[in-house]
Amino acid sequence: MAPQFRHHDSPAGAAAAARRAQILTSHLVLHNQAPPSSQQHPITTLTSNVCLSYSPPELSETISFDPKEMRRLLDGHHIAERDWLFGLIEGNELFNPVRKGGKVYVMPDVNQPFQQQREMNMKRIKYLFDKGVHKGFYTEAADSGAEAYMRNLALQEVLRTYDLTLGIQMGLHLFLWGSYVKFLGSKHHQEKWLKATESYEIIVCIAMSELGHGSNLQAIETVATYDSSTEEFVVNTPCESAQKHMIGLAANYATHALVFAQLHTNGRNQGLHAFVVQIRDANGRTCPKVRIEDCGPKNGLNAIDNGQIWFDNVRIPRENLLNGVADVLPDGQYVTKIKDPRERHGQQLAPLTIGRVIVSTSSIYKTKVSLAIAIRYALSRRAFSVTPNGPEVLLLDYPSHQRRLLPLLAKTYAMSFAGNWLKLTFTKREPQSYKAVVVFSVAFKAIFTWHSMRTLQECREACGAQGMKAVNRLGLMVAESDAQLTYEGDNNLLLQQVSRIVLTEFLAAKKHKRPLKEFGLEHMNEPSPVIPSQLSSSILRSSQFQIAALRLRERDLLHRFSSEVSKHQFWGETKDQAINLAYHLYKELSKAFTERMILQLTIEAEESISAGPIKDVLALVRSLYALICIEEDDTFLRYGHLSAENAATVREEVTKLCSELRPHALALVSSFGIPDSFLAPIAFDWVEANSWSSVSGGH
Amino acid sequence: MAPQFRHHDSPAGAAAAARRAQILTSHLVLHNQAPPSSQQHPITTLTSNVCLSYSPPELSETISFDPKEMRRLLDGHHIAERDWLFGLIEGNELFNPVRKGGKVYVMPDVNQPFQQQREMNMKRIKYLFDKGVHKGFYTEAADSGAEAYMRNLALQEVLRTYDLTLGIQMGLHLFLWGSYVKFLGSKHHQEKWLKATESYEIIVCIAMSELGHGSNLQAIETVATYDSSTEEFVVNTPCESAQKHMIGLAANYATHALVFAQLHTNGRNQGLHAFVVQIRDANGRTCPKVRIEDCGPKNGLNAIDNGQIWFDNVRIPRENLLNGVADVLPDGQYVTKIKDPRERHGQQLAPLTIGRVIVSTSSIYKTKVSLAIAIRYALSRRAFSVTPNGPEVLLLDYPSHQRRLLPLLAKTYAMSFAGNWLKLTFTKREPQSYKAVVVFSVAFKAIFTWHSMRTLQECREACGAQGMKAVNRLGLMVAESDAQLTYEGDNNLLLQQVSRIVLTEFLAAKKHKRPLKEFGLEHMNEPSPVIPSQLSSSILRSSQFQIAALRLRERDLLHRFSSEVSKHQFWGETKDQAINLAYHLYKELSKAFTERMILQLTIEAEESISAGPIKDVLALVRSLYALICIEEDDTFLRYGHLSAENAATVREEVTKLCSELRPHALALVSSFGIPDSFLAPIAFDWVEANSWSSVSGGH
Repeated sequence: MAPQFRHHDSPAGAAAAARRAQILTSHLVLHNQAPPSSQQHPITTLTSNVCLSYSPPELSETISFDPKEMRRLLDGHHIAERDWLFGLIEGNELFNPVRKGGKVYVMPDVNQPFQQQREMNMKRIKYLFDKGVHKGFYTEAADSGAEAYMRNLALQEVLRTYDLTLGIQMGLHLFLWGSYVKFLGSKHHQEKWLKATESYEIIVCIAMSELGHGSNLQAIETVATYDSSTEEFVVNTPCESAQKHMIGLAANYATHALVFAQLHTNGRNQGLHAFVVQIRDANGRTCPKVRIEDCGPKNGLNAIDNGQIWFDNVRIPRENLLNGVADVLPDGQYVTKIKDPRERHGQQLAPLTIGRVIVSTSSIYKTKVSLAIAIRYALSRRAFSVTPNGPEVLLLDYPSHQRRLLPLLAKTYAMSFAGNWLKLTFTKREPQSYKAVVVFSVAFKAIFTWHSMRTLQECREACGAQGMKAVNRLGLMVAESDAQLTYEGDNNLLLQQVSRIVLTEFLAAKKHKRPLKEFGLEHMNEPSPVIPSQLSSSILRSSQFQIAALRLRERDLLHRFSSEVSKHQFWGETKDQAINLAYHLYKELSKAFTERMILQLTIEAEESISAGPIKDVLALVRSLYALICIEEDDTFLRYGHLSAENAATVREEVTKLCSELRPHALALVSSFGIPDSFLAPIAFDWVEANSWSSVSGGH
Repeated sequence: MAPQFRHHDSPAGAAAAARRAQILTSHLVLHNQAPPSSQQHPITTLTSNVCLSYSPPELSETISFDPKEMRRLLDGHHIAERDWLFGLIEGNELFNPVRKGGKVYVMPDVNQPFQQQREMNMKRIKYLFDKGVHKGFYTEAADSGAEAYMRNLALQEVLRTYDLTLGIQMGLHLFLWGSYVKFLGSKHHQEKWLKATESYEIIVCIAMSELGHGSNLQAIETVATYDSSTEEFVVNTPCESAQKHMIGLAANYATHALVFAQLHTNGRNQGLHAFVVQIRDANGRTCPKVRIEDCGPKNGLNAIDNGQIWFDNVRIPRENLLNGVADVLPDGQYVTKIKDPRERHGQQLAPLTIGRVIVSTSSIYKTKVSLAIAIRYALSRRAFSVTPNGPEVLLLDYPSHQRRLLPLLAKTYAMSFAGNWLKLTFTKREPQSYKAVVVFSVAFKAIFTWHSMRTLQECREACGAQGMKAVNRLGLMVAESDAQLTYEGDNNLLLQQVSRIVLTEFLAAKKHKRPLKEFGLEHMNEPSPVIPSQLSSSILRSSQFQIAALRLRERDLLHRFSSEVSKHQFWGETKDQAINLAYHLYKELSKAFTERMILQLTIEAEESISAGPIKDVLALVRSLYALICIEEDDTFLRYGHLSAENAATVREEVTKLCSELRPHALALVSSFGIPDSFLAPIAFDWVEANSWSSVSGGH
């Protein structure tokens, strides 16, 4: 195609235009449009151009603590294993190495059509599998228990740092489906499926969501009807809205589906149960009575093969019901050890918890990539000067730039500590800790993924146009991470769920006149903390004050939420509707509840180490985390937890903390331990990376 | 590739696992994970499945006013021309029609590699050009003046509704480059270039940003040195950081570049000036001494061919300097009618204003697409029930869903009115209105594009997984719109610029003891408005209260910002640094300033129409706009403009307004006038659109 569409011939009646132009130009007096620093200009004598050159932040920044030691604290577990996996990917041709500015970066090529992206993703999975990633997931690992599971969680964090789809593809099959077999399958199922799962002899998708129902799973329409004459279930999609929809792995790769359907037997509907249905044969052809279509391209995660599935009275053996919660006897009799159907429903969904654990913790790990890029760039990119004839100022030396990035850095630290606790508590879960694992996996999933999206976007904006280039990853990471807000539970619904659980706990304690003892709510049994009427810097930086402030907010919001719900119920609303009407409060409460827990876990991490430079810098990080939670949340002012005067003091202290953390910024992001090749060219010598010799490929 | 990697053999020591599974399953008692509505389940007798079916919102919603009339008010101008352009695109094979659920949608295919996307984009531009879109932009249109310009602005809104890149590609060349020729070019330049521009005989890119400097344009490093011996300028890229970077149209299509460079003549640097440099010959080959590379794929706008350009002492005729502000005589003497170099610099950038006008107003037009999709979906999608055995509830009947979408709808209405004012004031600008055009183009660009991004993302999330599918557009529109936060001025810097201008105006008035009379700041000359200590619903809904509240905030923030800056200056900081240190206040002030103006313009729009149902619903919209500005902004509480009690009353009123606007939601989005084919399948019969017959293509 010609670069322009040629037309010929010339002038015209531009007279009026020209006249107007003259009028305008003589009035275009725009002091206003002059950029902030007027001092650098005009240079009235011709100076030789001093070209910008890249100066690595390492040359000018001081490192006041050992980033390796900090990383041990942050990562918490399996550092050698992470580095081993980073090493497998780094520079490997299969992982699309990109050479820029004398360095090599690895990143998926999202300029390919989605079909090719999927193929590349599967090739990478196969390669990593052959190298032993997630090896012996259920058999070998079973012997080493929690240790092996934690190792696998660490590997997921690394995989998702390269590309979320890589981790998701493995996560759905190995972690989610595997959990179903392990926790809802019988011994027979485990023997039959676990080995085949870890060896990829089968690939199984989770066929849960339907076109008509994604969140309200109790209402899903797929039916599995027991036929005692053949001892089979007949799995059927009764109508279009019952089609399984947006099912990851379904469009291309899954051999089997774990199908969630209403179990009908002996003329009764026993509610949601999980069934194993083969959907493709050994040659990859779709099985008879199964129809599958591709959901097509998406705004991100295009290497995941989301599909739609219809079942046309597919017959499966009776034993393909995962019968850990309930079973159907050959004659069609429904047997269960759990009488309450709500409880039974809950158990059918319990294995989903692992999905939320992985999504929340790995979203924080991914966030580190964006912060390392944006902060390194802000330590090498200058713009404007603030003194006459002064040099241009590093972006990170602007207070506003510090305020944009450093609180997000502090939150990422705090959420790392909280995430480590969640992984460990999940992996070593005991009956008495299980309720906490459930509620915090739900809470962290919502709060962490929103934090992650916000951070990725802020880092993108903080890097300007550079942040939009695919090679610099930031903009693409936003699109890639977006789905996390929805899958494994819509974040808004999760917030409601958290507040419901907390309210239930609170009301039960009240009713039985017993103290609260779950979820760190014990503080509710004590008198309300009191915030000093005048806050000083030293008070604001004490963890005692900080936790008290977050507890005060949580306590007050829980009381308000409880009484708001009661009020609506008193006026005749159902409990569900009462909660819906109190939506402001349940959102505020679940956030307050989660942030208090994160702070608590951060304080514990800090207390676990001995005095020294790491502890000192962590105290700053922890203070910034606590105070930004206070400063950003208008509930403190709205409900009078803080006076306007104290709120102003908090804001000042946030600014001070940002400036005190500024000298540690490089060390703090170096401590993430993300190899250079997983960052981006703008994090390093971006002048060289964009130089003619780098980009022209020698032509 | 085989769907799975076959390995063979079976069982393993799953004994421990099984044991743990048993322990766990007997403890997985999760009342917690039961979804909100427990009443629908269990159905203990087997009922026949009542399948979900799509019911068009038109069947159940009432329309209380005439959407056509509302659209006339909202669009403000050139409705027939918009519809003509919509019609050119609808169903046209070139615009990638997608058939779903018995309807046809048009949307670019972003699953193509970026090179193909660019080619398609250019084919579309050629087609539209041939059909007369932007016909006679500078010659024919010049005769009809403002009318023709407004028509072209309307067409840009429609083009960007299909695909931002379509409008951007034309916008850079026709509007931006054209403005430079028209306002900074001589009559000779206009005669030479304008006709060639509108006929696409040439395509010109704006080579302003460099690798080393994007915002701080005074510091750009490209040099144009005058050589009097040949009467030429020598344009040179002295170093890598001076390369022109991320220049739209540069990588493939531009024939010429408008190059911003430091003008050196007679041994002096006269600062930033604009020069025309040919970069490709008639055959599309890069000209000698010019090097161009592709910036590669981005996170959005991949059909825009962003490139890097290096100039190796390219010689151009003296006349290629756009000399509206200053000129170089043949002997090298620099002549200008503007003595102050800052003023001269400002004038060189003045034509950029049109870019901000288009970006801000068309971002709001695009936002309408997302709201129409998400609200229509929320009027046809149900989830959970809130009463025993009750039907599932429409998403938009949940108060929290109303609160998520309806305030964004109200803002979009208000910004449409404000945008119309901006377009008209820009187009018909007079010397006395020019300062206002500049400051509000800057202010609206930042506030509108952030609003647009937030709305697109909220709509994506509100549509769950459906919002992520490319065919449903929402997620892709987010990625597409992201660059708007950065180009035509980084939003954060723009906020600073607005507050600087307002502060300058304020201080000048104070110094000369004259009243303020710019930018609607006249209210500052009056005594401070007083907010009643007790707010009632009727007070809250009066425009008098609303404007008073926003003025009170603006006034207070301006005083605070001014005194904060003075304080820092008193302590020895430069003015630039003083402003940097007051970053919270300049952000708050520029937002307050902008929102007050938007409200003022919304009130004017409302007052312009006679009593009737439209006026009634607009009063609700305007009240929701005003009150959401108050409710969302913590400055009202932080600085004591509102008591906590009054803030609670405002919040209650927002909830009430949302529920009162709920019945009008369909009519309000229908009034946008966006044809169905520019929306998405989930906005209509999404059951049919996802049905087997629709998606299987008959296999």
